[in-house]
Amino acid sequence: MNNDNTLRRLKTIEGHLKGVIRMVEEDAYCIDVIRQIQAVEAALNKVSSQILESHLNSCVITAIQGDDASERERVLQEITEVFEMANKV
Amino acid sequence: MNNDNTLRRLKTIEGHLKGVIRMVEEDAYCIDVIRQIQAVEAALNKVSSQILESHLNSCVITAIQGDDASERERVLQEITEVFEMANKV
Amino acid sequence: MNNDNTLRRLKTIEGHLKGVIRMVEEDAYCIDVIRQIQAVEAALNKVSSQILESHLNSCVITAIQGDDASERERVLQEITEVFEMANKV
Amino acid sequence: MNNDNTLRRLKTIEGHLKGVIRMVEEDAYCIDVIRQIQAVEAALNKVSSQILESHLNSCVITAIQGDDASERERVLQEITEVFEMANKV
Repeated sequence: MNNDNTLRRLKTIEGHLKGVIRMVEEDAYCIDVIRQIQAVEAALNKVSSQILESHLNSCVITAIQGDDASERERVLQEITEVFEMANKV
Repeated sequence: MNNDNTLRRLKTIEGHLKGVIRMVEEDAYCIDVIRQIQAVEAALNKVSSQILESHLNSCVITAIQGDDASERERVLQEITEVFEMANKV
Repeated sequence: MNNDNTLRRLKTIEGHLKGVIRMVEEDAYCIDVIRQIQAVEAALNKVSSQILESHLNSCVITAIQGDDASERERVLQEITEVFEMANKV
Repeated sequence: MNNDNTLRRLKTIEGHLKGVIRMVEEDAYCIDVIRQIQAVEAALNKVSSQILESHLNSCVITAIQGDDASERERVLQEITEVFEMANKV
């Protein structure tokens, strides 16, 4: 995966989450805290999508073009699983 | 895709949704209606995952093993898009 | 709840879902089917929010202004529950 | 809100997120990273629900039992908004 870009985004999200923690420490208004948590989640969704995109364009292509049928199946199964989970979080 | 199974599930969901409509017509308790709508959504998520699974095991394998690079790219791009959308609905 | 508006929306969604079933019957492209299912879910989310809104402005106000502490608690507990579920579907 | 419990949970999530960053730094398998991000999101959903619960049992009760109609409306509107957003992240 494109580590640099992913790392940068995750560190920004870490900063955002620290901000949320500070809000709670300073007894911020509940709804504002929830909104910031939701913003963190939206940012995490974005990172997940990018990681999936680069995964599809590397490992998945390699596996599907490879000769190992069980590896192919495993790789595709994983995508269905993270998709299913994406619907839930 | 495995049409029969998908169709059967979608028709069950249609029946479920008709039940929700009936609840509203009969002035059911709001929270019960919301819960049933959420159950419909959970069932729709399940169908989506199954459709994606069979798509991965057919069209996606064909495209990736094929010679058309732009087709390959298109097919993978679509997966990222529905994944991104799955995070939002 | 505002039954007329809710009913109208739910019936539109029912029509949308019937369209999805037709797509599957006619063997439409998997990704297009998934996208339409996601559109149905987005519409269901919208209806849920509206039902919750009118619930808050009727039953919830009545319960909270009423004298029955356990009823108050029940009504608030339900909101947390549908919120928690909303995060999952 | 119950600050201590919320803070403890958020700090645990911060630790979890740091773990995700470490995984990316060490070039972990994409799907494993996505799964951990989804676990972080599930934990954030849990915290949001708890914050909402305590908000309902404090500010919301106070506002609804109070005399200020516009404050009441504002507080209820916020709940609909975070519910709507919960459906999207």
